[in-house]
Amino acid sequence: MSSDETFATAENNCVAKIYERHFHESLERLHGERRYRVFADIERISGRFPAARWRRSDGTITEITVWCSNDYLGMGQHPEVVSALTATALRCGAGAGGTRNIAGNNSPLVDLEAELADLHDKEASLVFTSGYVSNQTGISTIGKLIPDCVVLSDALNHNSIIEGVRQSSCEKRIFRHNDLDHLEALLREAGDRPKLVVFESIYSMDGDVAPIGAICDLADRYGAMTYLDEVHAVGLYGARGGGISERDGVMNRVSVIEGTLAKGFGCIGGYISASRLICDAVRCFAPGFIFTTALPPPIAAAARASVRYLKHSSAEREAHQRQAAATKRALRAAGLPVLPTETHIVPVVVGDAELCKAAADRLLERHAIYIQPINYPTVPRGTERLRITPSPYHEDSHIEQLTAALAETWDTLSLA
Amino acid sequence: MSSDETFATAENNCVAKIYERHFHESLERLHGERRYRVFADIERISGRFPAARWRRSDGTITEITVWCSNDYLGMGQHPEVVSALTATALRCGAGAGGTRNIAGNNSPLVDLEAELADLHDKEASLVFTSGYVSNQTGISTIGKLIPDCVVLSDALNHNSIIEGVRQSSCEKRIFRHNDLDHLEALLREAGDRPKLVVFESIYSMDGDVAPIGAICDLADRYGAMTYLDEVHAVGLYGARGGGISERDGVMNRVSVIEGTLAKGFGCIGGYISASRLICDAVRCFAPGFIFTTALPPPIAAAARASVRYLKHSSAEREAHQRQAAATKRALRAAGLPVLPTETHIVPVVVGDAELCKAAADRLLERHAIYIQPINYPTVPRGTERLRITPSPYHEDSHIEQLTAALAETWDTLSLA
Ligand SMILES: Cc1ncc(COP(=O)(O)O)c(C=O)c1O
Ligand SMILES: Cc1ncc(COP(=O)(O)O)c(C=O)c1O
Repeated sequence: MSSDETFATAENNCVAKIYERHFHESLERLHGERRYRVFADIERISGRFPAARWRRSDGTITEITVWCSNDYLGMGQHPEVVSALTATALRCGAGAGGTRNIAGNNSPLVDLEAELADLHDKEASLVFTSGYVSNQTGISTIGKLIPDCVVLSDALNHNSIIEGVRQSSCEKRIFRHNDLDHLEALLREAGDRPKLVVFESIYSMDGDVAPIGAICDLADRYGAMTYLDEVHAVGLYGARGGGISERDGVMNRVSVIEGTLAKGFGCIGGYISASRLICDAVRCFAPGFIFTTALPPPIAAAARASVRYLKHSSAEREAHQRQAAATKRALRAAGLPVLPTETHIVPVVVGDAELCKAAADRLLERHAIYIQPINYPTVPRGTERLRITPSPYHEDSHIEQLTAALAETWDTLSLA
Repeated sequence: MSSDETFATAENNCVAKIYERHFHESLERLHGERRYRVFADIERISGRFPAARWRRSDGTITEITVWCSNDYLGMGQHPEVVSALTATALRCGAGAGGTRNIAGNNSPLVDLEAELADLHDKEASLVFTSGYVSNQTGISTIGKLIPDCVVLSDALNHNSIIEGVRQSSCEKRIFRHNDLDHLEALLREAGDRPKLVVFESIYSMDGDVAPIGAICDLADRYGAMTYLDEVHAVGLYGARGGGISERDGVMNRVSVIEGTLAKGFGCIGGYISASRLICDAVRCFAPGFIFTTALPPPIAAAARASVRYLKHSSAEREAHQRQAAATKRALRAAGLPVLPTETHIVPVVVGDAELCKAAADRLLERHAIYIQPINYPTVPRGTERLRITPSPYHEDSHIEQLTAALAETWDTLSLA
């Protein structure tokens, strides 16, 4: 190494220190607000969901029960899903090898898009690498393609929607959560301009449901397009798993339905379903779709198997609703502060970041029950909670264990 | 259905028509500029790469040779990669079931991050759902965490970098492609302000290479951080596949190395490798990392197997360079306009969008050779090209076929 290089390296270290300070300070702020997160290292056990192995930082392993997975129906371990994945990996290999335009447009992915269009009774679908990317690049592209568009966005929309709206550079108006009067006032205010109403069907932290039909009525009355995020509902609701819009019979009134392949369908990836023209325009103009490697053939095949299976089988949906209701009943009977919800999501409010973390730590350490604490900014301060997600594979005995563990924890920590 | 609903639906159709017009017009513009793309529907054949099945719109299938895959080393079909994928799917199931923070932080992913940190000799790594997302949310988060930061960005940087810089809201200065003098002038101009230099090691369309060491010298002299996209180099260059920065012995001088798991490593996903502090800050603040489902365990395991394998085996890298050089030699000998490159990328310039498309169509239809035409905006107008990517699995006989097919096509279409 020349002395010049030594010098450069020493310099570099000084430079590095200056920059590291900024990162350090940001992290200290998080620590100070008790918002620094440590990820639990979990290995799922296929065929035995919701059992999993928890690997501590010292390498020791404890078997636990997962109560906070968004693989809501346990489809990630379904034999048809796993075998579609392994068979396609053996037939086609692992990755797609390119973007959709350059060598990556694999047949399993094309077939998956047809399956999803059929699911939502739309002309077409377009698959992205995640639900996040669907919203981010989907909404921003649609917004950009409509000159002078005003976006009306629900106050509790997910970060991926917020980013999509921001990147559309459209004027944005936020309506109070699920508030039809406020939405109508904003639609009226927007006058003759093109309008896009963006909302979710199930809001994942409170488990409440949007009045989709009534929102579509307003959209029609004021000439607005609608974009509906069904991420927490696809696979789970509707006769074929088309989501709340299918359950409510309003699927065809929504312009764009967005969903994920990573929750109810147990894989990874996201999509929009809409008219052929809208999907084609997003396909041609969305940078987050164009400039990235396509979803691997084995993942596309696994996701398709999941979507297809859930179109025909309602057993998982029924068991899911049954066990979610049983969980709520049991927790309520034990005097635990379950937020009333009409869906499969069971929030138990703690209302304090540190206590919420302490409760989760105790559940894991003492009871081998894994429920990640949900703190600000995912939920407002003062509403910190344990967000519990029963599945068809959580049996009555699991629910009993959970109830006893939560009761013990609430007692020990003197929670309300 | 009430008459009210009928009315609403009729209204909705009118509304839809108004909006569809915007999408229609945008697509018409693309058609008019001959930039509308149709994706070839391809099914890879594991174990027989670069052979694949091409499915036409009428459903008929033709076996073809792929010459434009970014699975540069064919690792997508490597037995160790495929068996890591299938074994992990059988053990853990398909999807991760949650975000990194909520139930999705699977052990194979944690292990993959350790493997990548080791690859680049950095303290830590952080995996994202794609290389695109790594750049977009990684750069924007780093930029946001450094108060008053100026970003210096190479003129030919990839769309994902451009989006990351834009979303950082930092002041941006673009330096002429690989131009050290221009970069130095801009660094000097930025004075005492914090500075981040963002560039790529291999630029994928021209196949040229950045002077990484010299850029780091400038960064040191002017007190700038560096962010290097090694997407087209990881796995392919360096004694262990650490990229051009490893090959050039400057890995430790770059603050952040970004890479993909979808090209040289043959899977999907992206990552950054950097100091523990930087990775931790991005982990805690990057929305595109926080609010999305984690990479599936089988994909993480497959990617790790690929990274690990390529650390120890150089046979693929050597065969890759050998066959790329042989391809260039053969095409040049046949008088074809190969752009001179020092890397594995072999661009053959056509210089006209329609002719470029016609050449690609003829190669596919007539010669069963698949090379996607690269047109504006991916490359500047007038430099439209066929971008050819030889792999270790393209044998000499493949190269002969390719050369003959290109010569015939150039002849028939009277290309220069
Ligand atoms: C409402 C909503 N939309 C979109 C997403 C993103 O989906 P994905 O995990 O597939 O990126 C999530 C959560 O992850 C979500 O809660
Ligand atoms: C330079 C560069 N960076 C990043 C990406 C994105 O990587 P990925 O395909 O993993 O999203 C690409 C291409 O896809 C690229 O060419």
